Amino acid sequence: MGLFNKDIRNLGDLFVHQLRDIYYAEKQIVQSLIEKATDSNLKRGFETHLGEIKNHVNRLEQVFKMHGVEAKGIDFPAIDGVIEEADDIIANVDDKKVLDAALIAAAFAVEHYEITRYGTLIAWAKQLGRPDCASVLQQNLEEEKTTDAKLTSLAERNENVKAA
Amino acid sequence: MGLFNKDIRNLGDLFVHQLRDIYYAEKQIVQSLIEKATDSNLKRGFETHLGEIKNHVNRLEQVFKMHGVEAKGIDFPAIDGVIEEADDIIANVDDKKVLDAALIAAAFAVEHYEITRYGTLIAWAKQLGRPDCASVLQQNLEEEKTTDAKLTSLAERNENVKAA
Repeated sequence: MGLFNKDIRNLGDLFVHQLRDIYYAEKQIVQSLIEKATDSNLKRGFETHLGEIKNHVNRLEQVFKMHGVEAKGIDFPAIDGVIEEADDIIANVDDKKVLDAALIAAAFAVEHYEITRYGTLIAWAKQLGRPDCASVLQQNLEEEKTTDAKLTSLAERNENVKAA
Repeated sequence: MGLFNKDIRNLGDLFVHQLRDIYYAEKQIVQSLIEKATDSNLKRGFETHLGEIKNHVNRLEQVFKMHGVEAKGIDFPAIDGVIEEADDIIANVDDKKVLDAALIAAAFAVEHYEITRYGTLIAWAKQLGRPDCASVLQQNLEEEKTTDAKLTSLAERNENVKAA
């Protein structure tokens, strides 16, 4: 991280930094959640989102290109933290319903994190006089919001989780 | 983390686990952002939120008590990640406007993270047959949403950030 941040001198640099954060997050997160889901609806929901994520990654690469910088991810400790927490719970929870509830909670956290980050990136792109970049990022934001709504409905279906 | 998670066997345990996550987050985060803000509006906004956070912590302690478990935080890697990233940017960014833009982005990420977690906790409290706990947590959620709206207006005022 430090190596890159030494180069943050203006809003344009900050924009690129967070673009790399979200690029890392998009590539990293769902793959690690999909394999762990046990409920078939949940697994299918995650798999559908994986298709969307490939589009998100392509759009991010497009924005890197438009902005004239190399498309690469940087280590993003907050996302690593979510994965680490999910992995830790998964390793220790035997009840499949409880496991899925934990995975849905982790997926919600990631979605909201991404929604927030896209919101910030879009605002910064506009301030930087790049409505073209903002518009590409807006498409990812809209899809994240749709995913969030789908997750809500999955979470509601998962409501047969009962306390022991 | 591992030590605690070995005890997650049902939704009630998961509820307590995430209650401890958010308890840690509430106590940890804003303090670390306040001291770093340079813009007086931003600093004042963070300070106002600090007062609210004390209420959030009190309400969480109330929920721990209602649920009959000890009020304690547990290390929450996602929140540590956000702080680590903010600290890393802060250490390397000289331009105060850019620094404040980065802090606002970090605060947004934290708020959305907290909003998501409170949403999950409220749903789980209801499933556990504890609408009384849900109702106390709902008060924190409402205040987080108000803070989020205030941050949006701060972010808009900060829009004089220009690219170099």
